[in-house]
Amino acid sequence: MSDHHVYKKVEVVGSSKTSIEDAIEVALDECSKTLRNIEWFEVKETRGHVVDGKVGHYQVVLALGFRIENS
Amino acid sequence: MSDHHVYKKVEVVGSSKTSIEDAIEVALDECSKTLRNIEWFEVKETRGHVVDGKVGHYQVVLALGFRIENS
Amino acid sequence: MSDHHVYKKVEVVGSSKTSIEDAIEVALDECSKTLRNIEWFEVKETRGHVVDGKVGHYQVVLALGFRIENS
Amino acid sequence: MSDHHVYKKVEVVGSSKTSIEDAIEVALDECSKTLRNIEWFEVKETRGHVVDGKVGHYQVVLALGFRIENS
Amino acid sequence: MSDHHVYKKVEVVGSSKTSIEDAIEVALDECSKTLRNIEWFEVKETRGHVVDGKVGHYQVVLALGFRIENS
Amino acid sequence: MSDHHVYKKVEVVGSSKTSIEDAIEVALDECSKTLRNIEWFEVKETRGHVVDGKVGHYQVVLALGFRIENS
Amino acid sequence: MSDHHVYKKVEVVGSSKTSIEDAIEVALDECSKTLRNIEWFEVKETRGHVVDGKVGHYQVVLALGFRIENS
Amino acid sequence: MSDHHVYKKVEVVGSSKTSIEDAIEVALDECSKTLRNIEWFEVKETRGHVVDGKVGHYQVVLALGFRIENS
Amino acid sequence: MSDHHVYKKVEVVGSSKTSIEDAIEVALDECSKTLRNIEWFEVKETRGHVVDGKVGHYQVVLALGFRIENS
Amino acid sequence: MSDHHVYKKVEVVGSSKTSIEDAIEVALDECSKTLRNIEWFEVKETRGHVVDGKVGHYQVVLALGFRIENS
Amino acid sequence: MSDHHVYKKVEVVGSSKTSIEDAIEVALDECSKTLRNIEWFEVKETRGHVVDGKVGHYQVVLALGFRIENS
Amino acid sequence: MSDHHVYKKVEVVGSSKTSIEDAIEVALDECSKTLRNIEWFEVKETRGHVVDGKVGHYQVVLALGFRIENS
Repeated sequence: MSDHHVYKKVEVVGSSKTSIEDAIEVALDECSKTLRNIEWFEVKETRGHVVDGKVGHYQVVLALGFRIENS
Repeated sequence: MSDHHVYKKVEVVGSSKTSIEDAIEVALDECSKTLRNIEWFEVKETRGHVVDGKVGHYQVVLALGFRIENS
Repeated sequence: MSDHHVYKKVEVVGSSKTSIEDAIEVALDECSKTLRNIEWFEVKETRGHVVDGKVGHYQVVLALGFRIENS
Repeated sequence: MSDHHVYKKVEVVGSSKTSIEDAIEVALDECSKTLRNIEWFEVKETRGHVVDGKVGHYQVVLALGFRIENS
Repeated sequence: MSDHHVYKKVEVVGSSKTSIEDAIEVALDECSKTLRNIEWFEVKETRGHVVDGKVGHYQVVLALGFRIENS
Repeated sequence: MSDHHVYKKVEVVGSSKTSIEDAIEVALDECSKTLRNIEWFEVKETRGHVVDGKVGHYQVVLALGFRIENS
Repeated sequence: MSDHHVYKKVEVVGSSKTSIEDAIEVALDECSKTLRNIEWFEVKETRGHVVDGKVGHYQVVLALGFRIENS
Repeated sequence: MSDHHVYKKVEVVGSSKTSIEDAIEVALDECSKTLRNIEWFEVKETRGHVVDGKVGHYQVVLALGFRIENS
Repeated sequence: MSDHHVYKKVEVVGSSKTSIEDAIEVALDECSKTLRNIEWFEVKETRGHVVDGKVGHYQVVLALGFRIENS
Repeated sequence: MSDHHVYKKVEVVGSSKTSIEDAIEVALDECSKTLRNIEWFEVKETRGHVVDGKVGHYQVVLALGFRIENS
Repeated sequence: MSDHHVYKKVEVVGSSKTSIEDAIEVALDECSKTLRNIEWFEVKETRGHVVDGKVGHYQVVLALGFRIENS
Repeated sequence: MSDHHVYKKVEVVGSSKTSIEDAIEVALDECSKTLRNIEWFEVKETRGHVVDGKVGHYQVVLALGFRIENS
């Protein structure tokens, strides 16, 4: 029924050498290949690898919410 | 092996104009189309949209647990 | 001393086939058979069993606060 | 700027003798007298008073989100 | 009394199409129109809308702390 | 309606050179100048500044609950 | 067996007009009338009633741990 | 009523020199002397004493759930 | 791109009659039938069923992280 | 660089027979023997030992923040 | 002063191929080379690496508490 | 033993006038002067000072994990 939408949330981890925002975009990019209707994200954790005393990769754990089709 | 069951948990959001309980049933309804063996739910968050100073939709974030078949 | 009340909190789980509110009343009903002076409750968790893709039982975990007599 | 909305969240407690949903509506009702543009709510806590072993009042602690006007 | 400052905290949500930092500045910008003496912020949640598989808006939930005047 | 009270919660920070209790009283003192009907407080955080290896100020973050008038 | 002690934890609320420490002592005092072997306490919440803009009662929620006898 | 079971949860601490699992069994063992119908446990905390740089005792804080008889 | 890995996290529950470690292995065993590239796990909850005052099954709730292929 | 301060946080436990405030001062006293530049503390836990139904020691778990020199 | 002990807590991660308990002992072993007077540990997180669908290493994040000498 | 690495975690606060990422790099920079083998970081809190209604400094609380040498 059109006013009874159901959403699913999945947890993913994006990584990037440049910024937190880029790690989020990288995760969205990959996931939107297989998931349609992604509508929102929530940052769950921000962390990263350190290489030689500098940030190697930012790693951002995200929950992505998408509408289940035809719901 | 029958005494080594494995369960999976997925996070979904049901919505309803009428009540929290109805939002839970709406989510179960939609998910049981594709998931067999749902055995329990856990309410993670209760929230909603407001329209003209009244509840427009209740939105209930649920974890659903289901047995992996043949596990 | 009358202005030094002491309260105790116990954790119980009520269940109901019909609603979250009913599960709360069921728990209060049972506990008030043995505990006098229950003054408040706090909902700690809301969950339930699923049977054939529908809510079988709502299960509500409550903390109940009651005054210790003569305190 | 129209694509730079800013929202404010306030925490309120609604109460009702009948149900959790009614306590939410009571809080929205009261707050929409003074706040325009309430757009969502989040349930933070559900609790209540107990009178003679029965629920006297449900008390629901809510965060209400509303758009700051002209933001 | 000068050594008895009292602060108030309010919760706001800033949004931006470009970055998390910009969403924080947008919220500060709007709130400093009506609140004097904002002294600090705490990020409570970072989330956002997704449009066509890309970040539409970053939404940052902030607590802002400001000194109550003459306190 | 008299049995449908609505409460609002605000978050404040009181400070004191002498004790945690005094920081709470300082916050109540300041807030009761502008808020009527404060009915309860909840301590959210206890922290402080350190000066020369001693407590300079205790800082207590409180939520204050007050009844909205005529609710 | 002497090296297999088992402890039980109960949650209580002590109240006092004077201080947080006194509310803890009031709770211990009352509970040690019926529980032997109380060995530790953990403060779970600190809150209170407000009367005329001043602290009416401090209310301290405690977990008390006591050794089960002969365990 | 048979389909309105009510459960109670108690918090206990089991200890063991050998393993986390043994500390859980030790707690169940002791508690089942006085509680019938224990149906589940939840591990709340795992900690321990250290003696000469080695684990002296594992201490496992558990919530035990048991059905209230005749509920 | 090889330096832009994306990971997904799924939540599963493994159970075992013998130990917490075995419940983790049981869950990994089942999930590695359908998921390639599982790289880490995080224990979210440890709980279990009790039968006749002894542990019937340990139940360990795990988040499993696996690399999305070709990411 | 003077506008790029870096702070370190350490966790300590102070104890006192008299009050929570004294346990905080005891911890600061001891730590300021070896740490310079302590600037703030945050109370993480308040607990204590019980002796004969009375508080034996208050134990306050603190995070202390201090500036790293020359940062 | 003998009745004013001060403790410090440090966070470490032990790893082991065999069990959670062994990872705890490995961490204690290493840390007791440089820290005297370790008195307790608290498990903060349990996680691990997965290799070929099996646990490669358990990784246990611990807080260790030790008495500051002469405190 | 080479397959029994032990890691230590320390909590630090980096600050920067420009961005969250820069505050992280500033903290890593300072800490890598004295700590070798830093392998990862986890963002625990993001906050900042506000000056004239704009961000003065971002302050990022980080846990840094480093391998204990020869472990």
